[in-house]
Amino acid sequence: MSKVKPIGPIPNGYASADGELVIGGAKVSALVAEYGSPLFVYSKQLLTNRIKALRAAMPDELHIHYAMKANPFAPLLSHMADLTDGIDIASGGELTMALQAGAKASNISFAGPGKRDAELLAAIKAGVTINIESPSECARALDIAAREELQPRLAVRVNPNFDLKGSGMKMGGGAKPFGMDIALVVPTVQSILAANAHWRGFHIFAGSQALKAEALIETQAQTMALAARLAEEIGQQPEHINLGGGFGIPYFPGDQSVDIESIGAALAQKLKERPAILQNSQFALELGRYLVGEAGVYLSQIVDRKQSEGHIFLVTDGGLHHQLAASGNFGTVIRRNYPAAIATRYEAPTEEIVSIVGCLCTPLDILSDRVEMPSAQVGDIVAIFCAGAYGASASPANFLGQGAAQEIMVD
Amino acid sequence: MSKVKPIGPIPNGYASADGELVIGGAKVSALVAEYGSPLFVYSKQLLTNRIKALRAAMPDELHIHYAMKANPFAPLLSHMADLTDGIDIASGGELTMALQAGAKASNISFAGPGKRDAELLAAIKAGVTINIESPSECARALDIAAREELQPRLAVRVNPNFDLKGSGMKMGGGAKPFGMDIALVVPTVQSILAANAHWRGFHIFAGSQALKAEALIETQAQTMALAARLAEEIGQQPEHINLGGGFGIPYFPGDQSVDIESIGAALAQKLKERPAILQNSQFALELGRYLVGEAGVYLSQIVDRKQSEGHIFLVTDGGLHHQLAASGNFGTVIRRNYPAAIATRYEAPTEEIVSIVGCLCTPLDILSDRVEMPSAQVGDIVAIFCAGAYGASASPANFLGQGAAQEIMVD
Repeated sequence: MSKVKPIGPIPNGYASADGELVIGGAKVSALVAEYGSPLFVYSKQLLTNRIKALRAAMPDELHIHYAMKANPFAPLLSHMADLTDGIDIASGGELTMALQAGAKASNISFAGPGKRDAELLAAIKAGVTINIESPSECARALDIAAREELQPRLAVRVNPNFDLKGSGMKMGGGAKPFGMDIALVVPTVQSILAANAHWRGFHIFAGSQALKAEALIETQAQTMALAARLAEEIGQQPEHINLGGGFGIPYFPGDQSVDIESIGAALAQKLKERPAILQNSQFALELGRYLVGEAGVYLSQIVDRKQSEGHIFLVTDGGLHHQLAASGNFGTVIRRNYPAAIATRYEAPTEEIVSIVGCLCTPLDILSDRVEMPSAQVGDIVAIFCAGAYGASASPANFLGQGAAQEIMVD
Repeated sequence: MSKVKPIGPIPNGYASADGELVIGGAKVSALVAEYGSPLFVYSKQLLTNRIKALRAAMPDELHIHYAMKANPFAPLLSHMADLTDGIDIASGGELTMALQAGAKASNISFAGPGKRDAELLAAIKAGVTINIESPSECARALDIAAREELQPRLAVRVNPNFDLKGSGMKMGGGAKPFGMDIALVVPTVQSILAANAHWRGFHIFAGSQALKAEALIETQAQTMALAARLAEEIGQQPEHINLGGGFGIPYFPGDQSVDIESIGAALAQKLKERPAILQNSQFALELGRYLVGEAGVYLSQIVDRKQSEGHIFLVTDGGLHHQLAASGNFGTVIRRNYPAAIATRYEAPTEEIVSIVGCLCTPLDILSDRVEMPSAQVGDIVAIFCAGAYGASASPANFLGQGAAQEIMVD
């Protein structure tokens, strides 16, 4: 039972003071004392640093977009809108949030396979770019725009005939509900042009959560080649090409950070060599998890320490209702441990093997399974790292009557 | 790609009119027209019928409790509080909801491995039974009660040394964060008695979502024997014994409903033969999913019909943000299809193989994978059955800015 399991690597950028984890200059005990527990803490500095490093590695002309589905917390979203060149949204709800966060409509683009008429209308009225996912969606968007006497901004989302190798989620290379098959793209763009709508270009997204630079480089090259081929067939330069994203972050033992320097160098070369038809196209990367994931920590407080059949359980006031993915219950086949620590004993040596569980009355509610930790007691604070993406908004907050966690952004 | 996959059995009790699914006398198109889409519909009649059938099969003296974690929707909860003998809660939030729904405090019991001090205090003040999960939690509850000069109602939750065979989730038979190991039970009850607290009895829960009567009968017998043995050691009759629950519902192809007649007969026999120390004990079953799961349907409306590489996708305005478990992303290793139908073509013959997906921009958002259905179009309504338990409250409603679904209870 008590065979130890490894935990993922704690991201760079976290410090400690007096033996405690420090985030944005504040000790976790001070944060919990002020804001309560459980608590998501996002570091503004780490967000800024990540974008800076990425911009330094990437070609100057490349735009960086933030896919807000990763984390829509309003102060974080405002910060990301300031730091990036665009916000990518996936619903009418996200449209409202993006505009409230100060994003400019002309820098917002909207993808998603099930856009309702009301969402298309709101997007057209606001003047954001809609990534069209099917010929029938295109017809709906054109109809709505005609009725409103507005010129819609429409890009076409392509279902690529290749996937992103090693990606956690494949979004291309086979029958997919996302975008449209290549054969449908040219006639759809022609219908956009015929309707005198504003054709913005292409959105091509092949997968997400990949860590290998070679795979990302290969996919970006394939994406550019596909965009060029389609543009030639259409006979018109696309203004904008969303190259997708797919940069992952290390969650698990053995995972390595993406080598952005290699990717940036390869992309610079590809952009330099690009065909004439893409000469004036603006290229963008759409990143969510990569930009915000490592900048967030989920804190919860131990409410019980108990033994069962020789095994130690630390029960916290948090759980899968805030950290579904970390519990291993969201798109995971084999559960592995996210990086974690006893944040109030951050510098202490490991002393025992424990399982850290949430407060929910279900065996699914595991935060860290059989990990080596310093000996922790009731009142100690547990940190789960990599909590900045797909945490609070991607978890069932109301399960078992618990409710949402507090979220804060610290400097 | 288009090899058909089976779907689970549609529960009994659903009717149709003019080729449409009817719930509680209303056609789904009328329900969606009035309440919008996506929509959870719970049938009061099916809830009532289920409890009636269960009571008819079970011994008269047995109490039936509703574990509200399965579905806390307020009108449904009120109805369940009227129909059952007790409400089992798992948090302070559920305590508030149960009291608001009209449940009597003396019929409420509170289990959960991570009860905060504030939750223990609220439970003691309200006069509900607390199922104590560890010696340290017992000490905290006794301290709080002493400080408040109140007599707490405390039962002891036992981690049984057996599991429920074939259960979807094992909650006994090994090191567990739930309840306390058998060796700790007697000293804990003695500490309750020594503090002059009100000792209520035992809570013994070995697993959930089991379909085989023999397994449930065996577990109930083991549970009664364990309760008797512990009561003998303590030398006092327990007032109340929560036998756990564990009755599953058929979700998947080949699943059969639980044979409640066999279980009722075996339980009646066991109760008749019970040892003297349990003679005056009140026995209860704690059921959640079994009582409400089949009485709920999740409706969503098709917003796009598209083809990719010869495969048909029906994209609805619903998705995993309301139906996480049906999407196969909640405690599932291999995804299988919940029972589903094109509700607006309920009597039509199957004509094609389709995948029904939600509107979220993630490949996880699958409602029905490669199922045979009548040919459906934009505007048709899709029904996912077995949506009455662990649906709305167990799903990440705010994911991708979507928000919660409407919920209604119909007669």
